[in-house]
Amino acid sequence: MTIAGTDSSGGAGIQADIKTFTAFGCYGTSVITAMTAQNTTGVQGVHPSPPEFVRQQLHSVLSDVKIEAIKTGMLFDADNTVAVAASLKAHFGGPGSAMPPLVCDPVCVSTSGHTLLQPDAVKVMISDLFPITALVTPNRQEAELLLSQQDKELKISSLEDMVSAAKKLRELGPKAVLLKGGHIVITMQDIERVCSSNPDIEVVKDALLGDNMEILQASEADAATRELVVDVLHQSNGSTSIFVRPRINSTSTHGTGCTLSAAITSALARGLSIRDATSLATSYTHAGIETAFPIGSGYGPLNHMHSITLRNIPKPTLSNPHPFTRLLIKSTSKIWKEYVEHDFVKQLGQGTLRRECFIHFIKQDYHYLKYYGRAYALLGAKSPSYPAIQAAAQTMFNVVNEVKTHVSFCEQWGITEEELKSTPESSATTAYGAFIIDTGLQGDRSKLIMALAACLLGYGEVGLWLRKQASLPNSWVKWEGNPYLKWMEDYSGEHYQNAVKAGLDTIEAEAAADPPSIVRFQEWVATWERCTRLEKGFWDMALGLL
Amino acid sequence: MTIAGTDSSGGAGIQADIKTFTAFGCYGTSVITAMTAQNTTGVQGVHPSPPEFVRQQLHSVLSDVKIEAIKTGMLFDADNTVAVAASLKAHFGGPGSAMPPLVCDPVCVSTSGHTLLQPDAVKVMISDLFPITALVTPNRQEAELLLSQQDKELKISSLEDMVSAAKKLRELGPKAVLLKGGHIVITMQDIERVCSSNPDIEVVKDALLGDNMEILQASEADAATRELVVDVLHQSNGSTSIFVRPRINSTSTHGTGCTLSAAITSALARGLSIRDATSLATSYTHAGIETAFPIGSGYGPLNHMHSITLRNIPKPTLSNPHPFTRLLIKSTSKIWKEYVEHDFVKQLGQGTLRRECFIHFIKQDYHYLKYYGRAYALLGAKSPSYPAIQAAAQTMFNVVNEVKTHVSFCEQWGITEEELKSTPESSATTAYGAFIIDTGLQGDRSKLIMALAACLLGYGEVGLWLRKQASLPNSWVKWEGNPYLKWMEDYSGEHYQNAVKAGLDTIEAEAAADPPSIVRFQEWVATWERCTRLEKGFWDMALGLL
Repeated sequence: MTIAGTDSSGGAGIQADIKTFTAFGCYGTSVITAMTAQNTTGVQGVHPSPPEFVRQQLHSVLSDVKIEAIKTGMLFDADNTVAVAASLKAHFGGPGSAMPPLVCDPVCVSTSGHTLLQPDAVKVMISDLFPITALVTPNRQEAELLLSQQDKELKISSLEDMVSAAKKLRELGPKAVLLKGGHIVITMQDIERVCSSNPDIEVVKDALLGDNMEILQASEADAATRELVVDVLHQSNGSTSIFVRPRINSTSTHGTGCTLSAAITSALARGLSIRDATSLATSYTHAGIETAFPIGSGYGPLNHMHSITLRNIPKPTLSNPHPFTRLLIKSTSKIWKEYVEHDFVKQLGQGTLRRECFIHFIKQDYHYLKYYGRAYALLGAKSPSYPAIQAAAQTMFNVVNEVKTHVSFCEQWGITEEELKSTPESSATTAYGAFIIDTGLQGDRSKLIMALAACLLGYGEVGLWLRKQASLPNSWVKWEGNPYLKWMEDYSGEHYQNAVKAGLDTIEAEAAADPPSIVRFQEWVATWERCTRLEKGFWDMALGLL
Repeated sequence: MTIAGTDSSGGAGIQADIKTFTAFGCYGTSVITAMTAQNTTGVQGVHPSPPEFVRQQLHSVLSDVKIEAIKTGMLFDADNTVAVAASLKAHFGGPGSAMPPLVCDPVCVSTSGHTLLQPDAVKVMISDLFPITALVTPNRQEAELLLSQQDKELKISSLEDMVSAAKKLRELGPKAVLLKGGHIVITMQDIERVCSSNPDIEVVKDALLGDNMEILQASEADAATRELVVDVLHQSNGSTSIFVRPRINSTSTHGTGCTLSAAITSALARGLSIRDATSLATSYTHAGIETAFPIGSGYGPLNHMHSITLRNIPKPTLSNPHPFTRLLIKSTSKIWKEYVEHDFVKQLGQGTLRRECFIHFIKQDYHYLKYYGRAYALLGAKSPSYPAIQAAAQTMFNVVNEVKTHVSFCEQWGITEEELKSTPESSATTAYGAFIIDTGLQGDRSKLIMALAACLLGYGEVGLWLRKQASLPNSWVKWEGNPYLKWMEDYSGEHYQNAVKAGLDTIEAEAAADPPSIVRFQEWVATWERCTRLEKGFWDMALGLL
C-alpha cells in the first residue's frame, strides 16, 4: 500500500509506486493525500484530499485487503499526516494485527523545487509517524530539514556528515534510516577513509567491480577515479551499511525518491530484510535511470519496466490448458491443415488411395522411423532425470513396435522385410529424418521436442479427424471395409492417443517451466513449422511416388 | 493516458489502468476525475475533482508528454465530461496534432451497483465525447442506458440484440463500438444461428478450440455444450466481429471493464488495429480473471501481471556493461576466488612452484586442451550463423597454438611430445574435459558456452591478477627472472586478453538476446559453478601430483 500524492505525468507519486509494485510482482493499493497537476517541468497545481477522505480511503483498504508493507510519500499537510498516523495506529493497534513494515519517504520538496509538505507537518511526521516507521528515507535536503529543530546550522556535505546525520535521524524514532546521497559527490577515497576509521561499516557495491573481476575492470571505467553516489543505511541494531554506485549524468530523475521507497516497500512485502531490500531497490532505481526513455521536456521519469519482460506464452489455465500447443497450431494453421488434411489422408479415409502409394509411404516410413527412434535416443541422452530417460526409452519401444506393424502390413501385400530394408531412401525421407537429428545435435532438449512434435501430434490429429469424420452421417470416410482400416484404428486408438496426450503434457510442461524469450519462442515455432512442412512433403512424396 | 477515477483498493480505475499499461510495456499517464474510497465490497466514498483541476491535469500532461492513445473511464459528472472533451479538442484541434485513438469506457455503474456517472453526464458524453471517440466499450447495462434516449424499453438479452444494439450505438457517433456481453449467456448454437443469417460476421475464438485441434479437444471440455461469453465489435466500415470465450465462474471481476479498455488502449498505442487490439485485450482480461489471486472479501481484482515475467539478468547499461558475467562471478565468488587465487597460481607467481608440479600440470593440460578444442568444434556444429562458425574455428586454432606453447615449454625441460602424448590422463582431467563435452551433448549452444567460460575467463583473470600484483610496490610476485614468466606473459598478454574480451561479449550477447527464465538461468549458473570447481580440482591435482 502506498499513501501519497498523485502525479498526472506518471513518473512520481502513487503512479510511480504502482508501476514499481507491479514491476516487483506485488499487488498495489493506494491512498491519495493530494492530487497534483504536474509534468516533467514542474508542479502546476495541487488539490489536497480532505483528511476525512484520507481516513475513508485508509479504512476502505485496510478493512478489506491484507497489507504486507506500507510506504508513505507526499502527505501534504499536518492534518493529513495526523490522519494517516492515527488510522494506521488504530487499525494495527489491536491484538493479532501487527503493523506491517512502514517505509516513510519524507517527501518535502520536489526535484523541481516545489514544496510538497507544509512546514508544520514536519513536526507531526516526527512525533506521530516516526515511532511506527521501520525505515525513513530522506535525501540530504530533507535530512537537514528534519534535523533543523536540533541544529539549525546543520549541513550535510561529506560522507562523514552523512553517517553522522543518519545516526541522529535514527534517534528521532524510526527503526532505521536510509540517508540518500544523490546530491553529494563521493569518491572511493572518501569511502576508504570513512571505513578505515569505522571498520564496522559494510560497503555494498552496485554496478561497481568487486574482487576477482580484473577481466571486467580491463574493459570498464576505473572505479577508483569515478564519481560515486552513496546511500547510508543506519539501523537500530547499530549497524551501518553504505550502498555505493557510479554517479550517472541523466535528466531522467523525476520520481527517483518515490520509486526507491516503493521498491524497498515491495522487497519488504516479499520478505527481504531492510538491508537486502535497500540493496535490491537501489540497484533497481539506478538501472531505471540508466535505461530511461526520453519522456517530456524537463526531468523525465525513469524506466520502471526494465526488470520485467513480456511473457510469450500465456500461463495455462482451466479454460486454456494447452496454451502453447494452441499457439503452435494457430501460428502455422495453413501448413498444419495442408498436412493433417492432406489428399493422401483423404484418399486413405475414402479407401481410394492407390495401393502402390500406400506401400511407397510405408516403405519410406520404415526408413523414417529409424531416424525417429534414434532421435528419441538422442533425447534420452539429453535428459536431466530418470523419468525423462524412461519416457525416451518408452517412445523408442513404441517406435520399434510401430515398425513391426509396418512389417506385418507389408507381409500382407507380399513385401518382405528384406525388400523394405533395401528400398532406396527418398530425399523427402532423408530431409525430414536428418533435420530432426540435426536439430537434436544443434539445440537442447526443448528444441528437439519441438522437432519431434509435428509427427507425434499430426498422426494423432489425422487419426482423430478421420474417426470423427467417419462418425458423421453420410460420411465420406469409409471405416468398415476400408483396406487401410487398421492404420486408421491404430492412430485413432487409445494406445497411440495416450502417447499423444503424454507428448502434449511434455510440451506444455516444457513451455511453462522455462518460459521462453521471444528469440527462443520463435525458434520453437520455426522448428515446429519446418517439421510440419516436411510432413506434408512426405505425403506429397508418397502420392507422387517420388 | 487514462482519464478516470481512482480506486483505493487498486483493482479498478486509474490504478488498474496503470497496472495494465505497465503489463503491456507502455508508459502510463493519468488525469483523475474523481477519487473514490472503495474496496472489493463496494464504493464507500467519492471525492470529485473540480472541472478546472481536470483541465489543469490534462494541460500538464498534454503540454509535455507525447500521447499515443487515450482512454476515458469514470468521468463522474457533466462538468468533468465537458472539461475532458473540450481540453482534448483544444489540444488536438490544431494543424499537425492529430488526435490519438480515444477509447471511451462509458463507466456509469460499478460492478457493486454504485452510480459512477451522473445522469445528465450521459447526454454530454454522447454529444461531446462520442464524435472524437475511436471506440466505445459499454456493457449491456451501459448500452441500454446510452440507447434509452431513442428507445426507453430497449433490452439486450440475446446475441441478436447485441449485434443490433452495437450498430445502433455506432450511429451515436463513435467510429467503433465494442458491446461487452459479460452478463449475457450465449451458446455455440446462438453463434452459429446468428452467423448463418449474417455470413459476414467474423468469429474470433479465444481459449476455444479451432480447426484441426482434435487432439486438444480430446482432453478439454466440449465447447459445443459450454456457456460462452461474447463481445461484439462493430466498426464504421460496416464490419462486425464477435469475440467468443468460455464463461468462467469467478468472483475476481472487480475492474474488468477498466482493465479491458486499458488493454485495448495499450494495444492501440503499440500500433495494432482496433480488431487486433480487441482480440489481444479480451484474451488478456480473460486470463487476468482466470489467474487471479484471492484479494479482499468481495469481488476481487483480476491479475494484471499474468502477462509479464521478472527479468533474471539486468539489462546491460553504460555503468553495468557485463551484468551477466558479474552475476556469475558474484554468485560463485567463493569457489571462483579459490580457483583464480589458487596456491598453484600464487606459487607460480612467486616463482617457487615445484617444477614437477608445473610439468604435471602442463602434461595434463595437454590432454585437457584436446577436449577443449573438440568442445569448440561441437560449438561450431551448434552454431546458427557463419560468424559463429568462424569464431568457433578461430578458437580451435587458438587452442592448437596454445598446445604448441606447451610442447615448446616441455622441450625446454627435455620432455618430448611423445612423452606428453603417452602420459596417463588424470581423473581430474577426464572429469573436467568429459563434463564439457557432455554439457555440449546435453544442452544447446548457450549452455556449452557457459561450460567453456570458466576456463577462458579464469585464465584471463589469473593472468591479469598476477600482472597487477606484480606492479604493486614490494610485490610478492616475481616477474622478471621467474621461471614461469612466459606463462604469465601469455595469459596476461594482449592476444589471450582479446580472446577473453570476445568471450565476454559472446556471453553477454547470449544473455541479452535470449533473456533466460529462472530455470534456464539457474542451469547456466550451475554449469559455470561446476566448471569453476573442476578448474580448482585441476590445480589441486597438479599440486598433489595426482
